[in-house]
Amino acid sequence: MTILDSTLRDGAQGTGIAFSVEDKLAAVRLLDQLGVAYIEAGNPGSNPKDAEFFARARELPLSHARLVAFGSTRRKNIPPEEDGNLQSLATAGTPCCAVFGKCWKFHVDCVLETTYEENFRMIEESCRFLKERGKEVIFDGEHFFDGWKDDRDFALQALEAAARGGADMLCLCDTNGGAFPQEVSQIVTEVAGRFDLPVAVHFHDDCGMAVANSVVGVLAGASQVQGTLLGFGERCGNANLSAIIPDLQVKLGIPCIPQERLQLLSHGAKEMASIANLDLPDNMPYVGDNAFAHKAGMHADGVLKVPRSFEHVDPYLVGNTRRFPASEISGRAVVLERLRRAFPLLRLDSQEAKAVLEDLKRLEAQGYQFEGADASFELLARKRLRPFSPFFQLLYYHIYTDYSDGQDRGASATVKVRVGGETRLMAGEGNGPVNALDQALRKALEIFYPVLSQVKLTDYKVRVLDSKSATAARVRVLITSTCGAESYTTVGVSGDVVAASWKALEDSMEYLLLLTGAQSREETLD
Amino acid sequence: MTILDSTLRDGAQGTGIAFSVEDKLAAVRLLDQLGVAYIEAGNPGSNPKDAEFFARARELPLSHARLVAFGSTRRKNIPPEEDGNLQSLATAGTPCCAVFGKCWKFHVDCVLETTYEENFRMIEESCRFLKERGKEVIFDGEHFFDGWKDDRDFALQALEAAARGGADMLCLCDTNGGAFPQEVSQIVTEVAGRFDLPVAVHFHDDCGMAVANSVVGVLAGASQVQGTLLGFGERCGNANLSAIIPDLQVKLGIPCIPQERLQLLSHGAKEMASIANLDLPDNMPYVGDNAFAHKAGMHADGVLKVPRSFEHVDPYLVGNTRRFPASEISGRAVVLERLRRAFPLLRLDSQEAKAVLEDLKRLEAQGYQFEGADASFELLARKRLRPFSPFFQLLYYHIYTDYSDGQDRGASATVKVRVGGETRLMAGEGNGPVNALDQALRKALEIFYPVLSQVKLTDYKVRVLDSKSATAARVRVLITSTCGAESYTTVGVSGDVVAASWKALEDSMEYLLLLTGAQSREETLD
Repeated sequence: MTILDSTLRDGAQGTGIAFSVEDKLAAVRLLDQLGVAYIEAGNPGSNPKDAEFFARARELPLSHARLVAFGSTRRKNIPPEEDGNLQSLATAGTPCCAVFGKCWKFHVDCVLETTYEENFRMIEESCRFLKERGKEVIFDGEHFFDGWKDDRDFALQALEAAARGGADMLCLCDTNGGAFPQEVSQIVTEVAGRFDLPVAVHFHDDCGMAVANSVVGVLAGASQVQGTLLGFGERCGNANLSAIIPDLQVKLGIPCIPQERLQLLSHGAKEMASIANLDLPDNMPYVGDNAFAHKAGMHADGVLKVPRSFEHVDPYLVGNTRRFPASEISGRAVVLERLRRAFPLLRLDSQEAKAVLEDLKRLEAQGYQFEGADASFELLARKRLRPFSPFFQLLYYHIYTDYSDGQDRGASATVKVRVGGETRLMAGEGNGPVNALDQALRKALEIFYPVLSQVKLTDYKVRVLDSKSATAARVRVLITSTCGAESYTTVGVSGDVVAASWKALEDSMEYLLLLTGAQSREETLD
Repeated sequence: MTILDSTLRDGAQGTGIAFSVEDKLAAVRLLDQLGVAYIEAGNPGSNPKDAEFFARARELPLSHARLVAFGSTRRKNIPPEEDGNLQSLATAGTPCCAVFGKCWKFHVDCVLETTYEENFRMIEESCRFLKERGKEVIFDGEHFFDGWKDDRDFALQALEAAARGGADMLCLCDTNGGAFPQEVSQIVTEVAGRFDLPVAVHFHDDCGMAVANSVVGVLAGASQVQGTLLGFGERCGNANLSAIIPDLQVKLGIPCIPQERLQLLSHGAKEMASIANLDLPDNMPYVGDNAFAHKAGMHADGVLKVPRSFEHVDPYLVGNTRRFPASEISGRAVVLERLRRAFPLLRLDSQEAKAVLEDLKRLEAQGYQFEGADASFELLARKRLRPFSPFFQLLYYHIYTDYSDGQDRGASATVKVRVGGETRLMAGEGNGPVNALDQALRKALEIFYPVLSQVKLTDYKVRVLDSKSATAARVRVLITSTCGAESYTTVGVSGDVVAASWKALEDSMEYLLLLTGAQSREETLD
């Protein structure tokens, strides 16, 4: 079984996805590390950026992957030698080329507008042209499943043309994503039984079944799955390889990538999301942050007793981790487990542990939610369990928000803090009250704690809790901060969005100061 | 075929999802409108918020759906009459109850820790207890597929116990999401052939196959699919009904909801996302904004020639629209349709209609979204299409937010407005800047427009748009207002949460004044 990743070709056609040449080179290195066999990296004939990319990609030392250049079969009624697109494929410098051709009669009639015979010649001659130039050739049978259902002989004739042309692999594409698992099973079985050549499958997720179809396709005899690591792709996306690989390799024992690379999967998924400048959805199978998160109390209790009671695979195998987000639904057991990890020596039946649980309960009743805010949870527990002397104290803030002459004038904030025996007054401006407060506070505290200049706020989320109270509603603010590679989230709740933000900001700064064991400049001078 | 939606029960266990009682009532109304047969709405025994919800949900006039209360079978070694959870189910006031019990021997040994006989008695007696109290009873066989694979007779005995207890439906649950389509097909076929009772299936997406498994389950004989409208749920989520319903109904001709409701699906999906305060992922099958978006030039050309060349179904059937993101603004057809409804005499190819489209495009680029904000959309169009003289003009607001002596001191606002030739200066207090602004504005305007005293703000939502800019991020505020029975939503966007709220507030008041044809007291006196 081999994997062909098309994130850089079919994936790049997803709305909102745009890769620079640098991005593409980084993605190729990542996919090669993951041990993917083929990387379909672009269409050199249709896209000047891809031409530049292929020129540079040739220089990359790859340990596993073969690069694939993708393009159409030759245009109708010309010899392949005169087709610019085929020329680009042949000269892209990749060991392998994929060419797509029509397998659905209806498309030849209505989109291509040529004779059936010419269609088959286009396929055969394009494959032969690339074979003669030393390429490994994958023939992508566009709309193969629809073509088969419409006229099975026609669809088979297209594959036969590719085989005559010397194609090394016949790929059955479900181009519009409309195929169902049972027909996939039947059709792949028949095709795989009929050709000596290996068969690949390529699905789209328009019916929400691309992963299942890929797995079913392999069980029916396909020996290559084409997809994209995170399911990127046009419309609803391509088959999501980060689910298919563990489905096949972990659950069915069918190797897709070298076994030792499997544990890189979760990290690789995050890296690919970051290359695409997107957040990895928390609920992605196997690789998402919540893929092994147990929120319901009963499930969490069960997993703590025996992991396999509520987990279908061990998260460790794909480089992910079990999580017990603290929440109103999750029980005591989850909270205690988190406490145990943060404070290994703590006795869980002690008064202190009980006091933490009480704090948590009280705050959750106010609308706090610690499931996404590990740093606030740890701070809360630490303040209860260890002697804690605050790093700073807010004496006051005044914020002035202004609108006049038909324009929002932004906000300005005055903040006074005390650190040790000293106080500091600072002012800041921002495009809203929270931003102004953040600026002023930061300026005031950096004087005492230079390390705070390295903290960046990278995410800010507001959730209205009791939206029925309209503008008087309580809000929950989550702030994610980064310091170097470390990233952590804090939470604040209040009836006032500014006060809620303040609490989350305060936690963010306190947490970093705790983490770095910071001493104020004043103390250092003592 | 019936659909059971568990967004409010299993969906609520998804990380990051928290429904207020109001949210749950809104979701029930929405699911009922969609024509779902069963709404599993919570666990009255384990959660005080759910108890309040069920008390209020009883009053809702539902046209299609039956409410389902969910809970565990009785605890071990006590009679059902003494089990508080079963009592809560019986008294929740729903026509139907779902009880879950163990079908996997391993779970009885390691998690439940009782004898197999007692496990079967727990199932049988719990079903009987609820049946005797007049309930329709669904038995949820937890981990049924794992149980079957481990010890098929044991799993069947659990179902037989439920049948003896009088259960009306046997639901096969893939609780850890580990099942594969081919085993699902085989196991459901065997179970369905063995019992006279109807069989339901309930899948989780841990292998990325919940949708396919549900469809395969139905083809194998299941007559109910359990899932959640948007796939919300613990870990990787539950089976996504917004894909399963059209997969079954549009593609296979198996009715799930009344045919005329199918077109509400895309809008309903957006509304559910908005209730959960989440964005609907663009790439959701059928209902996502990109589900029928054609970015690749060749695909777009093909679709423009013959839609079915690259589309597996007609987007119109599920209330979605074809999009060409590269060449056209989003949802042009939708916008024109909405304009036509609000202004029946407007020619859609007129300069005015084009001007509205331009406005819309400009605002959407700023982060506005009119999907959930009909009132702002109508105001926008009306200002462009009809002579519009503003009801009031904001001259300025100043807001002062204060924290001192360790306490949030709330906010005070000063607002100056002009109505006709008169100006009015007012002050207001609130627990945050937006609330203070709202109070002051209201006091100032009610002098001129007494009708405004009847407006209540009933919902306030904040969405951070580019959360990566942290506290300087742009925010979108949605405000829902009620005046009598009428309820409408307005939107504002800004880098400042106060300014965004102001815009939504202004629209809310203007819209009501337009709707009621209000004249200011001054004009009335003329």
